[in-house]
Amino acid sequence: MNGALGGSVGCAGRFIVLEGPDGSGKSTQASLLAQWLRDAGVPLTTCRDPGGTRLGDRLRSILLDRHDCAIDMTTELLLYMAGRAQLVRERIRPALDQGHWVLSDRFLMSNWVYQCFAGGVDDRVFHQVAEVAVGSTLPDLTLVLDLELETALARTGGARDRIEDRSWEYRQRVRQGFLEASKRRIAVKPEGEVRVLDASPCPDILLTRLQHEVRHALGFDPRP
Amino acid sequence: MNGALGGSVGCAGRFIVLEGPDGSGKSTQASLLAQWLRDAGVPLTTCRDPGGTRLGDRLRSILLDRHDCAIDMTTELLLYMAGRAQLVRERIRPALDQGHWVLSDRFLMSNWVYQCFAGGVDDRVFHQVAEVAVGSTLPDLTLVLDLELETALARTGGARDRIEDRSWEYRQRVRQGFLEASKRRIAVKPEGEVRVLDASPCPDILLTRLQHEVRHALGFDPRP
Repeated sequence: MNGALGGSVGCAGRFIVLEGPDGSGKSTQASLLAQWLRDAGVPLTTCRDPGGTRLGDRLRSILLDRHDCAIDMTTELLLYMAGRAQLVRERIRPALDQGHWVLSDRFLMSNWVYQCFAGGVDDRVFHQVAEVAVGSTLPDLTLVLDLELETALARTGGARDRIEDRSWEYRQRVRQGFLEASKRRIAVKPEGEVRVLDASPCPDILLTRLQHEVRHALGFDPRP
Repeated sequence: MNGALGGSVGCAGRFIVLEGPDGSGKSTQASLLAQWLRDAGVPLTTCRDPGGTRLGDRLRSILLDRHDCAIDMTTELLLYMAGRAQLVRERIRPALDQGHWVLSDRFLMSNWVYQCFAGGVDDRVFHQVAEVAVGSTLPDLTLVLDLELETALARTGGARDRIEDRSWEYRQRVRQGFLEASKRRIAVKPEGEVRVLDASPCPDILLTRLQHEVRHALGFDPRP
């Protein structure tokens, strides 16, 4: 099963993260990409962030249950980081250390976009806590899915006039944040790669493009 | 009602924290001290940490429910800090800003003792995250209750031979940690005060000593 990995990347684990705004198709692509990697014989661990551990799932439910708790933005950042610290230590690091690949649906970049770029938390605060939470466990390849807001809304059955202006501006800012984070290589390993992809094509075309990036950025050749 | 505060401390809020190992009598003294301050006309907000907010109570139940989640020490530190960030922003800061006094059953010092001194998390990590979580909201007066382990165990109906050696050593280390933290003024405002008190006297005697410290350290005179 490890044979397909042998030629080009040896036994080293690789860490891939899918990022992007809600509605950009991350989760669909994560599962298609995971299937492709597994079919190619890659020993793969998948996760989503927040979540991915028992603790992470409990924190996820707190984070998504905003009606119950009015959570301050810095608190929110610390909660995401706590869940991620556990995810890294319980699943991601052990998987990478034994040569597995890891594919995560969101990771650290999302926090910078939502809490710092769109939410106003200081960059220094983000970097301070991120260092504590993940240390050097950063993605080798970050695939950022980018999509026009109109398209994202049309896909999810929404329309601009149903969205408050403030929410619309906020979503624009989130989209902009992912592009900015990619440019600044936020939450990317020094020798890691970031690729921004147009997420408007249909899922199978988009998958082909993601596969292309994985092959090229990670030197991965699934055919012996 | 604010009259008693007027003469000596003006309208500024004061932040008092009770610290010490389990079984040292913190919670009993916290409620006795709170009653005394309220009787003296002090507008008082009380809380416990972890806890004190809706989010904090949910995190407290996660932190105390160790059977369910095996939580890494750094994750634990981040979770405590997240709950505390919310507590500071939702209750402590607003109370102090309107001139209320705040009395908290545990705060930041406990984290340093349990996660750093006894748990091995790096000091730098603690200070990095603490700065993010509480900023400059640190106690004006920290009252540390210190007690021989034998006495603490006798009080709670335990005995040394019922405790595993490792647990005994850990408890010794926690006790030592509070003394060390007091000496190093961990989690204390630059101009703040720390007092270590022998917690072996009966509750009413101990209360008298705590009241003495509050009067002297904060220049508080409840009699007009």
